[in-house]
Amino acid sequence: MSSSDGCLRIPVDLGDRAYEVIVGEDVLDRLGGLMRAAQLGGKVAVVSNPKVLDLYGDAVKGSLVELDPAVAFHTIAAGEESKNLDTVRELYDRLLDEGFERSGTIVGLGGGQVGDVAGFVAATLLRGVNFVQVPTTLLAQVDAAIGGKVGVNHGSGKNLIGTFYQPRLVLADVTTLKSLPTRELRSGIAEVIKYGCIQDAGLFESVEEKLDAMIAADGKALSEAIAVCCRIKAGTVGADERELTGRRTVLNFGHTVAHALESLTGYTRFLHGEAVAIGMIAAAHMATAVTGFPEEQLERLVALIRRSGFNLDLQGVTDDAIIERTRADKKVVDGRVRYVLLKRIGEVVVRADVSDDGVRDALRYVRALS
Amino acid sequence: MSSSDGCLRIPVDLGDRAYEVIVGEDVLDRLGGLMRAAQLGGKVAVVSNPKVLDLYGDAVKGSLVELDPAVAFHTIAAGEESKNLDTVRELYDRLLDEGFERSGTIVGLGGGQVGDVAGFVAATLLRGVNFVQVPTTLLAQVDAAIGGKVGVNHGSGKNLIGTFYQPRLVLADVTTLKSLPTRELRSGIAEVIKYGCIQDAGLFESVEEKLDAMIAADGKALSEAIAVCCRIKAGTVGADERELTGRRTVLNFGHTVAHALESLTGYTRFLHGEAVAIGMIAAAHMATAVTGFPEEQLERLVALIRRSGFNLDLQGVTDDAIIERTRADKKVVDGRVRYVLLKRIGEVVVRADVSDDGVRDALRYVRALS
Repeated sequence: MSSSDGCLRIPVDLGDRAYEVIVGEDVLDRLGGLMRAAQLGGKVAVVSNPKVLDLYGDAVKGSLVELDPAVAFHTIAAGEESKNLDTVRELYDRLLDEGFERSGTIVGLGGGQVGDVAGFVAATLLRGVNFVQVPTTLLAQVDAAIGGKVGVNHGSGKNLIGTFYQPRLVLADVTTLKSLPTRELRSGIAEVIKYGCIQDAGLFESVEEKLDAMIAADGKALSEAIAVCCRIKAGTVGADERELTGRRTVLNFGHTVAHALESLTGYTRFLHGEAVAIGMIAAAHMATAVTGFPEEQLERLVALIRRSGFNLDLQGVTDDAIIERTRADKKVVDGRVRYVLLKRIGEVVVRADVSDDGVRDALRYVRALS
Repeated sequence: MSSSDGCLRIPVDLGDRAYEVIVGEDVLDRLGGLMRAAQLGGKVAVVSNPKVLDLYGDAVKGSLVELDPAVAFHTIAAGEESKNLDTVRELYDRLLDEGFERSGTIVGLGGGQVGDVAGFVAATLLRGVNFVQVPTTLLAQVDAAIGGKVGVNHGSGKNLIGTFYQPRLVLADVTTLKSLPTRELRSGIAEVIKYGCIQDAGLFESVEEKLDAMIAADGKALSEAIAVCCRIKAGTVGADERELTGRRTVLNFGHTVAHALESLTGYTRFLHGEAVAIGMIAAAHMATAVTGFPEEQLERLVALIRRSGFNLDLQGVTDDAIIERTRADKKVVDGRVRYVLLKRIGEVVVRADVSDDGVRDALRYVRALS
């Protein structure tokens, strides 16, 4: 990480597909210059959603106009519902219609949904065109925009159509987080806490210390935390780009129960980070029995999550339903659910020996908190 | 290339995505064993077309049943018209419906159209599943099945939606070529001649010598020629997997004029190899003026192509239309058409200095042949 020019630069080391994640305040207007420095020429097409484009379209256009005076903007409807093949197809049609070429660059400007769709189009148009991620939500800045997972939903489930395709550049302007609804910002903080749990006790402590500033969208507090998260994610992705060796699995801490909850409630009741917050507490409780994760660290995690203002209410979702749904997880091997469990804050281990009773105990513990 | 077990094995050296192309007679029933040896487990889904499945479905099933007793077969309509996103989507639906998993393997059994569609589905389903190519046309065995180009057509043009995705194994059973219509077999021979032209004078001579046996679908003659082609293609792909350095460009010998002809005639009048045959003669004629390619070698090429029985009739297609269409080629750089030109049989060079008059002269030469 370097910061000579006022922003933090995190390299993602993937050989001939290496790129940088750049994090900072008010850095949106550097997009054009950074793209030029990354040798991204050709036509530029920005994919965004109407609200984000309304807020940041002018700044982005101003920055890109030198690179491509005819920069094109394409909006897709906000929300998971438009993250599908119809949207992808519409983008293919529009881009090809306007003569988009192999040397061109697609910029995804928005949250994870925009990045996932724009990235999938970039991966599959003309056998792959340049792709740049400009995430504008905390969740996307610390997670979705880095690592190359792109794709769309299918009637049978989320993200079932997709591929791995690395961006050539990721630009995270933390100032854009000031326009984020507080609930979404809090949701992103759950992922920041996750990174602290899995690999960096110092980050965890830093969130404990600066939580209020982060929730107030303080640029400095967020920049530093986001950069640490990006460094952790970059390291994990660099070691296991295509999720083959299991190294990427640790990123899934809290996500096994979270995915079950989101799926059981139709992706409408919980924001992703809210479900992850619950999932992290559950996994931390399971760990006390399986790995000897200390009770007092469990309590610290619970305290931090409570201070972050998450709704932990599981009413209406039964233990049995959650347990059954976790078995449908993509990461199940030989029918055994593999949980990422804490050994201590900052260190995790993957275990396949959590009993159903252990899960029930953990869910009872979560239920008692609300 | 080794042949200890009666078939020829050509390694494609792509680091952690390396794989083997296996060429031989009556090798279809080895598919299951070869897949097991390549550690391809999980569910198996075969994508094919009705005619090919009718001919080889039983052999393939018999070979795969040990690997997956529930091996699924999915047919797509034959022909370029079904090489589109609707077909891809239908395959997504069917595969997900039957519970296809990340560990599963998609086998493309058929010509280039089947392989391109099946490969694109494999590349984009569940962020990539195992893919095996079992090409049953000469064109696919020497070209489409190797190198990772997968994709479908778009209303605006051919292969505009696609990606690079390497198979884990390619199995080319030359015995399947006996059921190929002669016109298609001849079309494939044009690509074999191309490999001789660009890199292997010995292969060119061998086609001169064994052309009749090849057209008669003689297994030994075809196996040897196909294996040499695969070795050349594997080397080129290994040096330039994603078509970035230009090394893959040489594979395009004869293809600049060929693509223009196919496009101008709506992909119905010429088979791909027929258009390539015309394109090779045209490019060879251009080369006599630009690189000093010897007249007598041009005449050898023309003689071989004539013996192969290609229709060289360009009636109804004007020089102007062809020249204009070549400028729309994906490989045009800064408006200059880059032709792959012969220096001698077995050696080519990429040149951007062919004048329109040079193209006209070449087309006049082709027209005079028919």
